[in-house]
Amino acid sequence: MPATTQITLNAPLDMHLHLRDGEMLHNIAKASAKTFSGAVIMPNLVPPVSSKEEVVAYKARIMEAVGDEKFIPYMTLFFKPGYNRSFLESVKDEISAIKLYPAGITTNSEGGVSGFDIEELRPALEAMSDLGIPLCIHGETNGFVMDREAEFVSIYEKLATAFPNLKIIMEHITTKESVAALDRFENLYATITVHHLMITLDDVAGGMLQPHLFCKPIAKRPEDREALLKVALTAHPKVMFGSDSAPHPRHAKESCGCAAGVFTAPIALQLLAELFVSNNAPLENLQAFVSDNARHIYGLTPLKKEVILERTPFNIPSEYNGVVPMHASETINYTIKEVRYG
Amino acid sequence: MPATTQITLNAPLDMHLHLRDGEMLHNIAKASAKTFSGAVIMPNLVPPVSSKEEVVAYKARIMEAVGDEKFIPYMTLFFKPGYNRSFLESVKDEISAIKLYPAGITTNSEGGVSGFDIEELRPALEAMSDLGIPLCIHGETNGFVMDREAEFVSIYEKLATAFPNLKIIMEHITTKESVAALDRFENLYATITVHHLMITLDDVAGGMLQPHLFCKPIAKRPEDREALLKVALTAHPKVMFGSDSAPHPRHAKESCGCAAGVFTAPIALQLLAELFVSNNAPLENLQAFVSDNARHIYGLTPLKKEVILERTPFNIPSEYNGVVPMHASETINYTIKEVRYG
Repeated sequence: MPATTQITLNAPLDMHLHLRDGEMLHNIAKASAKTFSGAVIMPNLVPPVSSKEEVVAYKARIMEAVGDEKFIPYMTLFFKPGYNRSFLESVKDEISAIKLYPAGITTNSEGGVSGFDIEELRPALEAMSDLGIPLCIHGETNGFVMDREAEFVSIYEKLATAFPNLKIIMEHITTKESVAALDRFENLYATITVHHLMITLDDVAGGMLQPHLFCKPIAKRPEDREALLKVALTAHPKVMFGSDSAPHPRHAKESCGCAAGVFTAPIALQLLAELFVSNNAPLENLQAFVSDNARHIYGLTPLKKEVILERTPFNIPSEYNGVVPMHASETINYTIKEVRYG
Repeated sequence: MPATTQITLNAPLDMHLHLRDGEMLHNIAKASAKTFSGAVIMPNLVPPVSSKEEVVAYKARIMEAVGDEKFIPYMTLFFKPGYNRSFLESVKDEISAIKLYPAGITTNSEGGVSGFDIEELRPALEAMSDLGIPLCIHGETNGFVMDREAEFVSIYEKLATAFPNLKIIMEHITTKESVAALDRFENLYATITVHHLMITLDDVAGGMLQPHLFCKPIAKRPEDREALLKVALTAHPKVMFGSDSAPHPRHAKESCGCAAGVFTAPIALQLLAELFVSNNAPLENLQAFVSDNARHIYGLTPLKKEVILERTPFNIPSEYNGVVPMHASETINYTIKEVRYG
């Protein structure tokens, strides 16, 4: 039996996940919890998660939604420049990272950072650096949609230089410029989604317009996708899988003014298996991309969970509890056969 | 009273219009016929309009849908490499141009041209050149969505060189590369839509995804829009207004797999008036852009029709017979006060 007919992943981690809240949280949390050992949970609720009490309460709501599944939500705070050292010390044990949004750049980011004045940010970022709290950043300017991420690279560089011991994670990178920045600064890391490894703007808007493939950052050019694929398939040690899976109800996607976000949580591992196998990438690279690199970068010891994928056609459902997944109703080549707890 | 509180346009012409057929034709034909003196009608029906009988019959259906309005539909044929001289001579008096679609590039273009072999095209294009029939082209390759039009410029140049007496009209241009080509070849002309003068990809996909602004060619970069604006506002003599107004029912736009096309027919002149005034462009340039240049290029004598616009807020309807227009439910500054027949 060829090795690729069955693939075992140890403790897969989704290092960038939107679980939302309320009814949506209950509708979609298990989709991640079933097959991932844990996930870094984005804090852009309304209002954003920005106090210890909010983190603790949100984590409890997630655990309730997850039910019997074994799953660790790695919690984050929504970055505010006013966070001081004593607050960060007090909240440190409840969180795995802090997420910075430039103001108004994506869903529920209105309260984010405007301008990137190093001196204004210094107290909070130095304290994070000292306390070993990673800074996750949605790196886009408010420039032209195809240029926003490349324009933001100079801000990543400014921050990486000013805070050399702060772990800065460039979230859901989509461009060759961000990939290139990885190797120029020791303290820059990145997450990459599965959809940005698969699609370009052509898939979103080159034929009919595909709202279910519309996300922020928007999918870019073929040469950008190639650069992302290269570091993912070779398991560049500073690169981690983060799905940025973002559920919206169908009506919010198929309407005049479609919300940004691709829902991949229930199919991410199957798609990644197919992607690595079809590109002849070693399966140990897949293991590193979906788990090992993240363990090293974040210093995590995940829950023991083995996910066994099999090369068997899988028909992606048209909806998961009202949310349309990427490639809805299409057939992919890998299916999840079994999940084993250790 | 400042001159711009009232604007009179003589015989406005829409040099690129989709009227479709059947129920849709009846729903939207009057929107153009009310305010335009005439329009060049695209032939991409199913099946495409490609015989004399089809042209004559389609024109009759249009005139029926137009009803009492005074309006000339300038008919076109769907280009096929097999058109020979005797056929073209026989159909010449029924058409104003022939429209060439690369195969599969936009709505109902499956029967278009694959490859641009000059010798294969020579019999038809030389006959058109001799008979004075302009060739209208949807100029996109099947490359990456943001590059398709710029990549096609080399084909425009090949055709312009091989057939120096053939009037070639680059339809609905969207890039600085196409604008630059205008001045390099005497026999290249262009139409420009009102939406490509107003929007970039940012408006389509920079915030929420806006299906009603999705069209082919897709709106491009800010520097492309600037180049288009410059030749429109200065009334470059080789540039004509062509709305490319393309109606689709609401459900075909707000869905998974949204059809390409922006519906501007009923508001195009109002938007153009606002655009020229807000950019301090001389109103004679607006007249040239929406009528005079087209008369010279096509050698037309349009129906006498005076359209009087007034600077009065106009609330764009949310729908016109089931079709959502550009800027639906928004307010613009110009309204059509009166249409006079002479």
